[in-house]
Amino acid sequence: MNETLNDLTQPFRIASEPWYRPVADEIALFEAAHAARMPVMLKGPTGCGKTRFVEHMAWRLGKPLVTVACNEDMTASDLVGRFLLDAAGTRWQDGPLTFAARHGAICYLDEVVEARQDTTIAIHPLTDNRRILPLEKKGELLRAHPDFQLVISYNPGYQALMKDLKQSTKQRFGALDFTWPDHGVEVEIVAHETGIDPALAEKLVAIAERARNLKGHGLDEGISTRMLVHAGGLIAQGVAPLAACRMALVRPITDDPDMRDALDAAVTTYF
Amino acid sequence: MNETLNDLTQPFRIASEPWYRPVADEIALFEAAHAARMPVMLKGPTGCGKTRFVEHMAWRLGKPLVTVACNEDMTASDLVGRFLLDAAGTRWQDGPLTFAARHGAICYLDEVVEARQDTTIAIHPLTDNRRILPLEKKGELLRAHPDFQLVISYNPGYQALMKDLKQSTKQRFGALDFTWPDHGVEVEIVAHETGIDPALAEKLVAIAERARNLKGHGLDEGISTRMLVHAGGLIAQGVAPLAACRMALVRPITDDPDMRDALDAAVTTYF
Amino acid sequence: MNETLNDLTQPFRIASEPWYRPVADEIALFEAAHAARMPVMLKGPTGCGKTRFVEHMAWRLGKPLVTVACNEDMTASDLVGRFLLDAAGTRWQDGPLTFAARHGAICYLDEVVEARQDTTIAIHPLTDNRRILPLEKKGELLRAHPDFQLVISYNPGYQALMKDLKQSTKQRFGALDFTWPDHGVEVEIVAHETGIDPALAEKLVAIAERARNLKGHGLDEGISTRMLVHAGGLIAQGVAPLAACRMALVRPITDDPDMRDALDAAVTTYF
Amino acid sequence: MNETLNDLTQPFRIASEPWYRPVADEIALFEAAHAARMPVMLKGPTGCGKTRFVEHMAWRLGKPLVTVACNEDMTASDLVGRFLLDAAGTRWQDGPLTFAARHGAICYLDEVVEARQDTTIAIHPLTDNRRILPLEKKGELLRAHPDFQLVISYNPGYQALMKDLKQSTKQRFGALDFTWPDHGVEVEIVAHETGIDPALAEKLVAIAERARNLKGHGLDEGISTRMLVHAGGLIAQGVAPLAACRMALVRPITDDPDMRDALDAAVTTYF
Amino acid sequence: MNETLNDLTQPFRIASEPWYRPVADEIALFEAAHAARMPVMLKGPTGCGKTRFVEHMAWRLGKPLVTVACNEDMTASDLVGRFLLDAAGTRWQDGPLTFAARHGAICYLDEVVEARQDTTIAIHPLTDNRRILPLEKKGELLRAHPDFQLVISYNPGYQALMKDLKQSTKQRFGALDFTWPDHGVEVEIVAHETGIDPALAEKLVAIAERARNLKGHGLDEGISTRMLVHAGGLIAQGVAPLAACRMALVRPITDDPDMRDALDAAVTTYF
Amino acid sequence: MNETLNDLTQPFRIASEPWYRPVADEIALFEAAHAARMPVMLKGPTGCGKTRFVEHMAWRLGKPLVTVACNEDMTASDLVGRFLLDAAGTRWQDGPLTFAARHGAICYLDEVVEARQDTTIAIHPLTDNRRILPLEKKGELLRAHPDFQLVISYNPGYQALMKDLKQSTKQRFGALDFTWPDHGVEVEIVAHETGIDPALAEKLVAIAERARNLKGHGLDEGISTRMLVHAGGLIAQGVAPLAACRMALVRPITDDPDMRDALDAAVTTYF
Repeated sequence: MNETLNDLTQPFRIASEPWYRPVADEIALFEAAHAARMPVMLKGPTGCGKTRFVEHMAWRLGKPLVTVACNEDMTASDLVGRFLLDAAGTRWQDGPLTFAARHGAICYLDEVVEARQDTTIAIHPLTDNRRILPLEKKGELLRAHPDFQLVISYNPGYQALMKDLKQSTKQRFGALDFTWPDHGVEVEIVAHETGIDPALAEKLVAIAERARNLKGHGLDEGISTRMLVHAGGLIAQGVAPLAACRMALVRPITDDPDMRDALDAAVTTYF
Repeated sequence: MNETLNDLTQPFRIASEPWYRPVADEIALFEAAHAARMPVMLKGPTGCGKTRFVEHMAWRLGKPLVTVACNEDMTASDLVGRFLLDAAGTRWQDGPLTFAARHGAICYLDEVVEARQDTTIAIHPLTDNRRILPLEKKGELLRAHPDFQLVISYNPGYQALMKDLKQSTKQRFGALDFTWPDHGVEVEIVAHETGIDPALAEKLVAIAERARNLKGHGLDEGISTRMLVHAGGLIAQGVAPLAACRMALVRPITDDPDMRDALDAAVTTYF
Repeated sequence: MNETLNDLTQPFRIASEPWYRPVADEIALFEAAHAARMPVMLKGPTGCGKTRFVEHMAWRLGKPLVTVACNEDMTASDLVGRFLLDAAGTRWQDGPLTFAARHGAICYLDEVVEARQDTTIAIHPLTDNRRILPLEKKGELLRAHPDFQLVISYNPGYQALMKDLKQSTKQRFGALDFTWPDHGVEVEIVAHETGIDPALAEKLVAIAERARNLKGHGLDEGISTRMLVHAGGLIAQGVAPLAACRMALVRPITDDPDMRDALDAAVTTYF
Repeated sequence: MNETLNDLTQPFRIASEPWYRPVADEIALFEAAHAARMPVMLKGPTGCGKTRFVEHMAWRLGKPLVTVACNEDMTASDLVGRFLLDAAGTRWQDGPLTFAARHGAICYLDEVVEARQDTTIAIHPLTDNRRILPLEKKGELLRAHPDFQLVISYNPGYQALMKDLKQSTKQRFGALDFTWPDHGVEVEIVAHETGIDPALAEKLVAIAERARNLKGHGLDEGISTRMLVHAGGLIAQGVAPLAACRMALVRPITDDPDMRDALDAAVTTYF
Repeated sequence: MNETLNDLTQPFRIASEPWYRPVADEIALFEAAHAARMPVMLKGPTGCGKTRFVEHMAWRLGKPLVTVACNEDMTASDLVGRFLLDAAGTRWQDGPLTFAARHGAICYLDEVVEARQDTTIAIHPLTDNRRILPLEKKGELLRAHPDFQLVISYNPGYQALMKDLKQSTKQRFGALDFTWPDHGVEVEIVAHETGIDPALAEKLVAIAERARNLKGHGLDEGISTRMLVHAGGLIAQGVAPLAACRMALVRPITDDPDMRDALDAAVTTYF
Repeated sequence: MNETLNDLTQPFRIASEPWYRPVADEIALFEAAHAARMPVMLKGPTGCGKTRFVEHMAWRLGKPLVTVACNEDMTASDLVGRFLLDAAGTRWQDGPLTFAARHGAICYLDEVVEARQDTTIAIHPLTDNRRILPLEKKGELLRAHPDFQLVISYNPGYQALMKDLKQSTKQRFGALDFTWPDHGVEVEIVAHETGIDPALAEKLVAIAERARNLKGHGLDEGISTRMLVHAGGLIAQGVAPLAACRMALVRPITDDPDMRDALDAAVTTYF
């Protein structure tokens, strides 16, 4: 914490505390893992607060945070770096993983299971006791900064599909489970994020809880906390609750007429 | 609205009001979403007016509009930007998404479901409360201009096929449904766009309504408002209505002899 | 027609009238579509005269014609343009579609269904009332020249296979059907193109008509007008009609012994 | 023939007469097709003399010959040309098809069915009456030299497999069938090419004729004339006929023990 | 050992002895293989100590160690080298395999079965008595340094899947089997690596042994020694053993509720 | 043999005689084929001595030898050559095939069936009487040096799988079969290569002969001569024969417990 600030990492530092409402002992466990520089995997559905948690922890630990939204077309070079052509020839540019490893940031690979296997293999030497990153194209063997830590997120809901992390990758991480917050906590979050009345927020949470019971019964995923914040935000802009719920909670997640009717009915129960 | 005009966005500003005939409360809902900077998804069949609506809203809100026709070969770099080789070495060129985020435009990704997943993942950090766009290749962490808003279009008719947006993408958007306008509204649109007589326009609309009932019964999609405007345009050029309808309404959408006969019969009922 | 000639389009202007024998009202319909700047789709089997028709119309309308033979490896960049590396750095080169849109040519995409989807999506903004072409890589929003018109060809015979145009593409075009000319017209065409005696040409047409009845009964496509012109050309070079028909009409389209016998028998009926 | 020689085509001219033994009227038919500048397709199994025939005709007609061995990884650019980076920037290099079209050579695409579809589509504008080649990347519309002619070869034996030429390609060519020469002609060829005694050559031909009867009964293709020339060549080097036939006729075409025994037995019948 | 140190290999030398607990005669066998410069294949599950063993042997033999984490997108060029563009033109950069072969390092290809086949074929000429590496792109025929040795790792657990090494690759290697250490040895390792009490370490090992029995019965792989070290490390940071085991042993390897319950129960038996 | 030595081929000349033990008349047949410049295909399982034979013949004939280990990612450009970017622009670099054809070397394409089809098609013009190599990208028509000869190797064991050479490729080669040497010859080879006692070598050969009988009964390939040399080499380093056989003969080729027991039992019969 009393480390000399590195200018390059400045844009990646979190200026003010990201509001985060803990649900269990996840902050203490992450701190212990960080102290041990153990790589951490955050598991849970989309929109439940994993990204916010990492931002909060980076702020709490006073470390810069480098976030990468993974996708199936991302190559190892996108993570590690590449040569760019310059007026004076080629110039090496660190990728986000290399940047983080070199400067002691927390590197957060969001939805890592989307990435191609070469990107997940590329993190292996950084995630065992060697803590190195061979930059083969550059001929450099980078030893990670002592503060560097790797964090990945993972949505087990996709696990049933073809994509999954390899066991040899999974075993390199400690894992923290995330799920929807408890009723009271979620009301608190929605009210805090949108400024709407807690009573109104409670209605939105109640609608979400009904929808989450439909997951696997015609709905791929439930209504997330993020979507509740969207609905609350529209209401705060003066939109009628019914129209706000339709636009922010129902229309985005299903086009099935029966499912829409069921969700619209759930909404009209409350508004 | 009283913002300082940025020269670079000038070509993307809509000079005169695009004529748009509202069908419900879509203008008010979009304005609220824009005020909340909530990403918006427009759902509906091809040719029903989604693109026109976005143009109208960009004009109404006084914002520049950057439109991208998505396709399955578009890469994240096409959206975000890339280095170009210049006399003095490499030079970064913002892609349309980056341009819009940097200069506060509305960015409209048309038929986003056609795009490869990496392009849809690339918009994630711009569509949650972070509103950032990591330009990993450039090493820049772009924070979106306060006026930036993302709009995408989506044709649920394709949803039955293999392509669909991921839940973690869908949940980041509020959604507005679009469909064919009501009878009177569509007559008004066709007459306005082509200059033909409303009585004639009404006949064209009636033909379209018959064809739309055949959707799913041998016809992939019905006859769209755009096609009616085509037929009206030919008639305005002096083509006989029967020939105009064949060329603009029937021949483009089916090669099946029985379906052609059915549609031709529908046409001859009116002309 | 009285427009100032643009030097760049000179190589794309048709110097002398391409001989074309109309079969119905296709010339008038195309002229109306051109006046309305409506995109046109020409449907019909290979070798029936679609390309010749477009050349004739370009000559008749006094517009330059840019033709692109589409294929499954053609990218959007091949149509739209790309940066080339030059002594002074990169230099933008318009692709044929951009060239045509910029200079007011008719752009003819031959066998467009062969192209990859990204190329067909690239034409969307040019084929609705916006008439724009976003050159994303160049950062230019090209507004089409008032004279620009897009024409595509399409062989419905392939439609049964996996490739088809998307509905959202088809609906942007008016469509004209082409098929084999009537008996007398086809005789006239073959005689005109090869210089052989009309009586001889009539025999060739008769053979073709027999073969066309075999389409779908062991023959993928019938004998086209183009092939008759080939046979007539060989005869005009002094080749015996029997040998000319074998080389130009039978051998190219089938290796099946029974089908060859059937076609050879049809030939010997006449020669 | 009395044309001014173009230095660039010099390496592609055939200096001395390639020995060719005609089997039917193929020379006269090719000459007529050349006079009409009709594209020609040579059909027949591998090793029966198609390439030799084209070389002979190029020599006989006094035209340069540009041969391209097609393969499934060949792109249209490999045929048409591309920009190369030079000290002074990019420089266009004609591909073999463009070279032939520009300088009036016969362009021979060997085993064209192996090529990707984009290469076969690229030849379309050169094979109808337009005789043009749009060099889209260069922005040039090349009109073919009056002497240019396109010749392709095609092995119908592969036709049963997935690869086939499109009808719209086939119909652009006149076709000549090739097959194994008659007994006496083949003896003459083998003796001429290897210098062995005609009696010995006759034995080799007899072995080949037996093997050709096994085609489709465990043997994909029969023993070609080329293989007989190989065997004769080994014998001319002093190898015993039995060993020469095993090495040149049997071992190359099958690893199946029973088929090897059958072929070896056929060989021992004669030697 | 008394060789002159090559500066370039300095970063690849192991400075201090990596702690390694032998389980059988693997050290002697590796030493003999190294003396014979025989390529060695290490077989065994992930996390059982193969990488540590190679590091130990490189230290023991006084040789530099070049490690490459293989992946399915790695090309032969990534291993062998490529030309980079420099101010003065192109410059060759040795890949890790070439570097090791040139300077006499041990080259360790981790999880080689993940690599594309071209990378495994590229090692063939280095793994027979020729000990050469043709750098075809550079036009150099590199003869390996006398000290060069190739080591690969291989997880037979994946063998059942589609990926496997070719027989012609396998036969070029001597093979050493690795598996989980015996009970006492593993306790020793966990205690040594984490500093926790051997009694505590024994509990962790006991939990792992239970889990390993579930392999193939709902668990893809057992709990590895590496994971035990993770759990011990969290405990050493003050995390309660139960929470540490959940985070480091259970959550990372399964999301199946029943399997989680079974593993959690195994954990609570001990803590 | 009395040719002027070309410096460029020096690194590709075999300095001292590679020891080769002939098994039949393969040396005489290869010499005749070389005299006739007939392309040769060596067929046989991995590790039976094909590569050594080619090296021996290159030494015996006094020709340079250019060896290429083929793989499925090798392109025709890797064989033929490409342009490299240099300080003065692009510079052509001959690939190994072009180098060999230009300078009169024997070019040996090892495991050619692994290569993509475009590489095998690229050799066609070099393997018929034309003996040319069109360097299309360079615009050069290379005529092969009179001493050039092409040799390929081919493992029929893979033939049952999807990969096979095309008939039009196979027919261009004479073929020589290779298999495991006779008992006495193989003992001689193992003793010569490792320096171990012939009695000991005979035991190793006996083990291999037993294993070869298991081919197709749970073992993909038998134990090769190369593997026996590995085992002998370990024994010569002082490793106990039992351990040497396990490491060099059994562990590399199977992970199946039953097969391992069977092979281990075969080993213990002798040691």
